[in-house]
Amino acid sequence: MPTPAKAYAAHDAESSFAPLDFQRRDPGPRDVAIDILFCGVCHSDLHTARGEWGGTLYPCVPGHEIVGRVTAVGSEVSDLAVGDIAGVGCMVDSCQDCPSCNAGEEQYCEKTGFVGTYNGPDKHLGGHTFGGYSDHIVVDRGFVLKVGHDEKDLAAVAPLLCAGITTYSPLKHWKVGPGQKVGIVGLGGLGHMGVKIAAAMGAEVHVFSTSPSKREDAKRLGATDLIVSKDADAMAAHAGSFDFILNTVAASHDLNPFLALLKRDGTMTLVGVPEEPHPALNVGTLVFGRRSLAGSLIGGIAETQEMLDFCRDNNIVSDVEMIDIQDIDTAYERMVKSDVKYRFVIDMASLKQG
Amino acid sequence: MPTPAKAYAAHDAESSFAPLDFQRRDPGPRDVAIDILFCGVCHSDLHTARGEWGGTLYPCVPGHEIVGRVTAVGSEVSDLAVGDIAGVGCMVDSCQDCPSCNAGEEQYCEKTGFVGTYNGPDKHLGGHTFGGYSDHIVVDRGFVLKVGHDEKDLAAVAPLLCAGITTYSPLKHWKVGPGQKVGIVGLGGLGHMGVKIAAAMGAEVHVFSTSPSKREDAKRLGATDLIVSKDADAMAAHAGSFDFILNTVAASHDLNPFLALLKRDGTMTLVGVPEEPHPALNVGTLVFGRRSLAGSLIGGIAETQEMLDFCRDNNIVSDVEMIDIQDIDTAYERMVKSDVKYRFVIDMASLKQG
Repeated sequence: MPTPAKAYAAHDAESSFAPLDFQRRDPGPRDVAIDILFCGVCHSDLHTARGEWGGTLYPCVPGHEIVGRVTAVGSEVSDLAVGDIAGVGCMVDSCQDCPSCNAGEEQYCEKTGFVGTYNGPDKHLGGHTFGGYSDHIVVDRGFVLKVGHDEKDLAAVAPLLCAGITTYSPLKHWKVGPGQKVGIVGLGGLGHMGVKIAAAMGAEVHVFSTSPSKREDAKRLGATDLIVSKDADAMAAHAGSFDFILNTVAASHDLNPFLALLKRDGTMTLVGVPEEPHPALNVGTLVFGRRSLAGSLIGGIAETQEMLDFCRDNNIVSDVEMIDIQDIDTAYERMVKSDVKYRFVIDMASLKQG
Repeated sequence: MPTPAKAYAAHDAESSFAPLDFQRRDPGPRDVAIDILFCGVCHSDLHTARGEWGGTLYPCVPGHEIVGRVTAVGSEVSDLAVGDIAGVGCMVDSCQDCPSCNAGEEQYCEKTGFVGTYNGPDKHLGGHTFGGYSDHIVVDRGFVLKVGHDEKDLAAVAPLLCAGITTYSPLKHWKVGPGQKVGIVGLGGLGHMGVKIAAAMGAEVHVFSTSPSKREDAKRLGATDLIVSKDADAMAAHAGSFDFILNTVAASHDLNPFLALLKRDGTMTLVGVPEEPHPALNVGTLVFGRRSLAGSLIGGIAETQEMLDFCRDNNIVSDVEMIDIQDIDTAYERMVKSDVKYRFVIDMASLKQG
């Protein structure tokens, strides 16, 4: 018997969010039921709710930065118990039977693609999956994370489930560590996590931003400095000096000035996909320096657990601004204007009280 | 006392090649003097001679795929002797004092840039360097290679000094080997060497070409098959299956269909710099697969020696078409039409007889 659930949903691409009553499955033997305490607000939520990427299934309940308390576990779940704090990120399932899934890189699932926490196919109840702007969620244990942070920090932990792992994974994959000079392009929800994590990994971190006004904040977050990316002289002063650059900016922009700042064998990794293409690549900058341009997508489940543990051990959480679910439309408007430091998080108690 | 030398030179961007009398330095303590037997003809020769890249210094004596016989060595040179067969590639000097030079990657020299075998600054005599379309050359031992191939193969060894190392270096750097599926885009001077070397490294090699007529030749060179890159169905059949793709095509073309053929974590490396930019990159193809697009430039001197030894041990030489120096203009015209299988090599005896 499915159980009733409450959410806030986009009922079409244009309307404001409105309450939705729907159903969650009863937990199966391998499932974990979670009472949602907090849910971060990601740009993907906005793009999906507004149908900006195409393919949105309505009603749409976004939210894939979920932290909550376990209320039930299936008979085969032995390592989570009622009362534990758990997290759910961008994925709730995958084929579990392809080279990527077998390597613990479910985000690159090659057979079915991973099943998104929202807007994915729901193999249990049919229809599509509903995300974290809701009162509870039921998820296969294989896609549930253990959260070890102090309970007073749980709201600020939520964004780690997407913004955290999306930056941690490439920083880890490209072996960022002590003695390295690392750049983070863009100081938003993703970028501010990238700064904290790269600094905790021991790297010297420089933020690239078009906004010099963010300099003090960049330093507070752990950066050595902020380089104004529109200042050609400031950029030239760092030519050929970066081991790795994590580029968190999804908007179309010229990649070439950043690639020129990489050392020989350096890599710049993109975690955003622009709607309009970036300007043409200067291939010479790649060839004369054996530089690489790469992409990276969130991170696998095992790596997400590793990231959460790393953040707990290094006292890393997100800088958040709390909102009630009833304020989600206003929050989206502010996100469009980059008016948030650095992540909105919904206090899901507001849904239950509303 | 500099010694007189003979060459064929471009005296300006438009005229036909014509003889040039000039001077080479006497060998210093660390120098090796080489009587040039054969010189391969690289596309860079053509671009430089015709001033197509800008910055050409005239008279221009191209040629950086040089094989010859040692005629004199300086007092400090102990590991080469008169009569030995030696090679010279794209570089004759570098700063020898930067991270890249110290790492044996002189091609990425960070202080002065490497000194090209032609059109580079000549610190000994002033003016600019003159390349291999000449009767002899004097080069610092640090930039001279030992050639161990059978003497009957020396003409076909010459192209290894540029085309060989330009393909060997990225194949080695990205760890191509047994069990891997490797693509070579373009079957020209570089591509045909890439096929031979990748196959000798143990990989399963597929050639991408717009010309299905090259299929039998591709197989003869060591490829499993040729994939017609304009055939969308043929390309789609290989989606997500390549470990590494070496792209030897310098002309502007769409990189995205090739990137989509890479496995998760696969890399496509470009060794050519297009005059017009490649069409816009599909960043999603990089992100959804953690794929990389990279560049690579020739190879270091130590690696060039390693490549020559590898090719000797694996009976690899270039497929060449011999010409006299007097036919160089005709050869250039044919190169522009890709009418060569697969490299012109000048028999330098023709210069001495001319």
